[in-house]
Amino acid sequence: MQQVKVGIIMGSQSDWPTMKHAADVLDELGVAHEDRIVSAHRTPDRLWDYGKGAVDRGLKVIIAGAGGAAHLPGMMASKTRVPVIGVPVQTRALSGVDSLYSILQMPRGYPVATMAIGEAGAKNAGLMAAAILANEDEALAERLDAWRAALSASIPEVPVDE
Amino acid sequence: MQQVKVGIIMGSQSDWPTMKHAADVLDELGVAHEDRIVSAHRTPDRLWDYGKGAVDRGLKVIIAGAGGAAHLPGMMASKTRVPVIGVPVQTRALSGVDSLYSILQMPRGYPVATMAIGEAGAKNAGLMAAAILANEDEALAERLDAWRAALSASIPEVPVDE
Amino acid sequence: MQQVKVGIIMGSQSDWPTMKHAADVLDELGVAHEDRIVSAHRTPDRLWDYGKGAVDRGLKVIIAGAGGAAHLPGMMASKTRVPVIGVPVQTRALSGVDSLYSILQMPRGYPVATMAIGEAGAKNAGLMAAAILANEDEALAERLDAWRAALSASIPEVPVDE
Amino acid sequence: MQQVKVGIIMGSQSDWPTMKHAADVLDELGVAHEDRIVSAHRTPDRLWDYGKGAVDRGLKVIIAGAGGAAHLPGMMASKTRVPVIGVPVQTRALSGVDSLYSILQMPRGYPVATMAIGEAGAKNAGLMAAAILANEDEALAERLDAWRAALSASIPEVPVDE
Amino acid sequence: MQQVKVGIIMGSQSDWPTMKHAADVLDELGVAHEDRIVSAHRTPDRLWDYGKGAVDRGLKVIIAGAGGAAHLPGMMASKTRVPVIGVPVQTRALSGVDSLYSILQMPRGYPVATMAIGEAGAKNAGLMAAAILANEDEALAERLDAWRAALSASIPEVPVDE
Amino acid sequence: MQQVKVGIIMGSQSDWPTMKHAADVLDELGVAHEDRIVSAHRTPDRLWDYGKGAVDRGLKVIIAGAGGAAHLPGMMASKTRVPVIGVPVQTRALSGVDSLYSILQMPRGYPVATMAIGEAGAKNAGLMAAAILANEDEALAERLDAWRAALSASIPEVPVDE
Amino acid sequence: MQQVKVGIIMGSQSDWPTMKHAADVLDELGVAHEDRIVSAHRTPDRLWDYGKGAVDRGLKVIIAGAGGAAHLPGMMASKTRVPVIGVPVQTRALSGVDSLYSILQMPRGYPVATMAIGEAGAKNAGLMAAAILANEDEALAERLDAWRAALSASIPEVPVDE
Amino acid sequence: MQQVKVGIIMGSQSDWPTMKHAADVLDELGVAHEDRIVSAHRTPDRLWDYGKGAVDRGLKVIIAGAGGAAHLPGMMASKTRVPVIGVPVQTRALSGVDSLYSILQMPRGYPVATMAIGEAGAKNAGLMAAAILANEDEALAERLDAWRAALSASIPEVPVDE
Repeated sequence: MQQVKVGIIMGSQSDWPTMKHAADVLDELGVAHEDRIVSAHRTPDRLWDYGKGAVDRGLKVIIAGAGGAAHLPGMMASKTRVPVIGVPVQTRALSGVDSLYSILQMPRGYPVATMAIGEAGAKNAGLMAAAILANEDEALAERLDAWRAALSASIPEVPVDE
Repeated sequence: MQQVKVGIIMGSQSDWPTMKHAADVLDELGVAHEDRIVSAHRTPDRLWDYGKGAVDRGLKVIIAGAGGAAHLPGMMASKTRVPVIGVPVQTRALSGVDSLYSILQMPRGYPVATMAIGEAGAKNAGLMAAAILANEDEALAERLDAWRAALSASIPEVPVDE
Repeated sequence: MQQVKVGIIMGSQSDWPTMKHAADVLDELGVAHEDRIVSAHRTPDRLWDYGKGAVDRGLKVIIAGAGGAAHLPGMMASKTRVPVIGVPVQTRALSGVDSLYSILQMPRGYPVATMAIGEAGAKNAGLMAAAILANEDEALAERLDAWRAALSASIPEVPVDE
Repeated sequence: MQQVKVGIIMGSQSDWPTMKHAADVLDELGVAHEDRIVSAHRTPDRLWDYGKGAVDRGLKVIIAGAGGAAHLPGMMASKTRVPVIGVPVQTRALSGVDSLYSILQMPRGYPVATMAIGEAGAKNAGLMAAAILANEDEALAERLDAWRAALSASIPEVPVDE
Repeated sequence: MQQVKVGIIMGSQSDWPTMKHAADVLDELGVAHEDRIVSAHRTPDRLWDYGKGAVDRGLKVIIAGAGGAAHLPGMMASKTRVPVIGVPVQTRALSGVDSLYSILQMPRGYPVATMAIGEAGAKNAGLMAAAILANEDEALAERLDAWRAALSASIPEVPVDE
Repeated sequence: MQQVKVGIIMGSQSDWPTMKHAADVLDELGVAHEDRIVSAHRTPDRLWDYGKGAVDRGLKVIIAGAGGAAHLPGMMASKTRVPVIGVPVQTRALSGVDSLYSILQMPRGYPVATMAIGEAGAKNAGLMAAAILANEDEALAERLDAWRAALSASIPEVPVDE
Repeated sequence: MQQVKVGIIMGSQSDWPTMKHAADVLDELGVAHEDRIVSAHRTPDRLWDYGKGAVDRGLKVIIAGAGGAAHLPGMMASKTRVPVIGVPVQTRALSGVDSLYSILQMPRGYPVATMAIGEAGAKNAGLMAAAILANEDEALAERLDAWRAALSASIPEVPVDE
Repeated sequence: MQQVKVGIIMGSQSDWPTMKHAADVLDELGVAHEDRIVSAHRTPDRLWDYGKGAVDRGLKVIIAGAGGAAHLPGMMASKTRVPVIGVPVQTRALSGVDSLYSILQMPRGYPVATMAIGEAGAKNAGLMAAAILANEDEALAERLDAWRAALSASIPEVPVDE
């Protein structure tokens, strides 16, 4: 069985429809991942434990999605040196700008690699995780190169009416 | 010696020039307070301990100021049922709107009583803390009423050129 | 009969679907409350009377929700030292940012404890009111602790497809 | 002595450097005005009295300037049918967008004629007041027409290096 | 037949569903008005003529609604000293903030009395026009006072579930 | 066959429903155009080739539409001196403000002629292209003048209920 | 003497420090231009005349800069089919976002080619004008190509401490 | 000599005072880096070459800073699968929100790990690069852990007046 190197965490079950796009692209690329709900506010001790054990459990990347006062990615970045990728989940009143600022504007010392708001950001979080792992995994690097080449090749030259 | 019922915490020494306005108004009103630096990201265990001991140490209100991805107020609200008042510290690029959204947009279950951005918000945080305590402290209620009356009485009727 | 210590007021009947979330969580926690429509602009005298009588009637917290040029929370804070919690109701053109700024940016002297925009903010207003009362009500403190513990316990570890 | 038909009110002495631009242009146009500090939060009863007596005292226009949670113009509009012109005073953190939204987004029933943020808005408030009065004052209408013609005539055709 | 003192103009037929709210409230108050489409960009000469003839035709107030780069209210204010009330029509991408800034931020010399974005702003434009006319029309003043009193009286004390 | 002088390019097939409005108005005006999908990120070499060959192929205007981190218009402006008109496509979370800033805020040296967000902007891009070509094409100038005159003539004087 | 094909117009003398950057780059490129103050609000008739005569006077491009409720570029676009390039001048309270929206969000039919806010936008306006003229002026095209090549060549490879 | 695994690139010499913070923290952590000016618009071919050679030259992380229509990070992400960290440089009119949106809102397929606006973001970019490398470099991991521990230890408990 493949060592799990990527942890996908999210603040709530309601973030899963967004974060699933990260999981899906990792599946496409053959990268094992674990998916967990870890709420910064409702389960802070779970967050603590997850962060403290991340290095020892062999995690190389943590993808964290949250919305509103989205503290999960930043608090995780405070608890572990494993790189944290943050996904701002779109919100109702503020369209995810609240999520974005809470994730992005981290103080010196605790970076969070912030992705675009919403589903595109979640998918790109998976790709960023794969790119980090591909630095040290030749086979994955080839799969990622192929994935990117296929994306490029899929673009038609001329738009069509729908 | 007066029991300390109000804890003023802030993410960094650089927040003190703002948060001092909360301390000053509590001093004016004769409300004892403790002032501490508790960084959500740099000293998360200090935050944990502060939150877990807040009820037992007799705190009735916690005033928490922070800037940028301001996680301190919300994380404290997750660790204790003591009411948390949040002060968004003004920031350079985003003027404190980042601080505001990170403090304000808390999910269901963990309210933070958010004040205006910057010094006015810090001063009002002290006044809000006093108002909460005044509910059960007749002498403080009188001092607060007097403070408010004095503020009203200080307003001249006609503006003057300066 | 339980003394009513929490007043929920709102600018208009149209705010009730939002503010009901404050009422509901207070009901869950066994906190008596009164619910009133008090429009700052349409019924300013009602606002005046409500504010002036708040202390004598034994109110310990006022929750005020309003949208747009949301003057109700701030004007109430000017008329009474009873702590005022403000809920910015979401609006059509500006998504409640107008409500937020009108409630949040109070001048020195008259704090409003501002909550998140919309329903989550209303629910959290009820919880903040309960937390303030719990400072002096051991039984309520226990119910609030239990409510919070139940919320934490309700979070599954793994997200599920829906 | 000329009947005072324009009241200029402002929330604080600190608004006077902005609001003076309204006073100055009314002086230029020979329109009598009274200038008063009326704080919605610190002197709500003064606001009440001013509003209730406005019609009887012969006021035809009220110019109200305020910053932040700028409730003065809207509350005045609730207390009198005399037309209220609102001037959003520029603020530190939010540049006057908070003032603007608090003044502009009035609910159905209580219009505030909102001007641009800051000094230009204050000057235009004076001109708008004059235009309203000029409807029924032929001499003022001529002075206003002349003022406008002079402004137009003052524009050079070609820009010059400074 | 009643002299028409209020002109309602708008940039396009598509603004009418919004601007109709101004017309309706003027009808309720018995104020005669004319409703015209005057596009600043598509019919600039019509704008010119309307502005130049406004005083002579006896107009006392012009209500101008427009969306996007909403130049109509400001250009009308440049062509006549008749007071212009501007209504920012809500837009698709920018929610009417574009309309608002184009109407509000007029330079010194040419005020536009800006109302809230959308239908509430249109209704309030009608009320502001009535308030200006009521200064010199005792019967209208009484109708406006009654309209305002009826609005106040219509507010129930207690919210009801729907 | 008419020489193609206008190239319409877009980042993705999903931009076509917006960009089609540019194509349609060019068709109305009898201006030949080619429509291509050129993704800055997925097909950067296609972008390179398109830009490098633009002058030699006789293109006089390039209309480029894109959404989000909309790099296509600006990168094209870097590769050719042919004037580039940019159309910010509306986006889900940020309403096209992201597209707008990415297209508009070009550094000194590489202008992009930015149009309004969305369909109106696309249509206007077509008209701007025609206006540029009309400088040197008398027949087109006449068709454009007629198009503009017809637009003006189409505006009714009085709004109608729908 | 060279035929003037580019008109630089601006709403006020205070816009000249910004707009001078357009003039300067046209000078560098050897493109004759005229510089005029044309205020949409203060000198609307001057605007009318300028627009109506633009084609006959041989203008091929009009560069229009303005700030705040920046109506000049859009109104000029309504009066002439000569391509109009708009430069949003930076403003005090709203940083030029007001200027931007007023210039950018033109309705279908009247495009304004909007540049970046401030000096960079003015310089790019000059370059865009040159690019349009270069389509039909081989010598200018060569000078523009050389200007662009020199800009590229001026970029060092390695940053240096200052 | 140490293999250079981190490339710091920026759009202009003027970005260096910001980006130097990335270089400095890498120096502190003993991570070799190269610093280059690569302008997306002025030197697109340099960007192309840098991106195409990144993998072969052994780069494991690219840190890219840019301001305004900040296309450099995203275009680099299109040209190489090496992880790209983006730093939005603060700008004059839009405070770096333009830089942020241009960097952050990348389409599916081409992630950019976006950091906070300005100097804090640049420093965190260096730390994120180090964290990625530390996954496979035990000695660096220890230095990074020590750096983080020292940061935590540096926080005093009590704020001091300055």
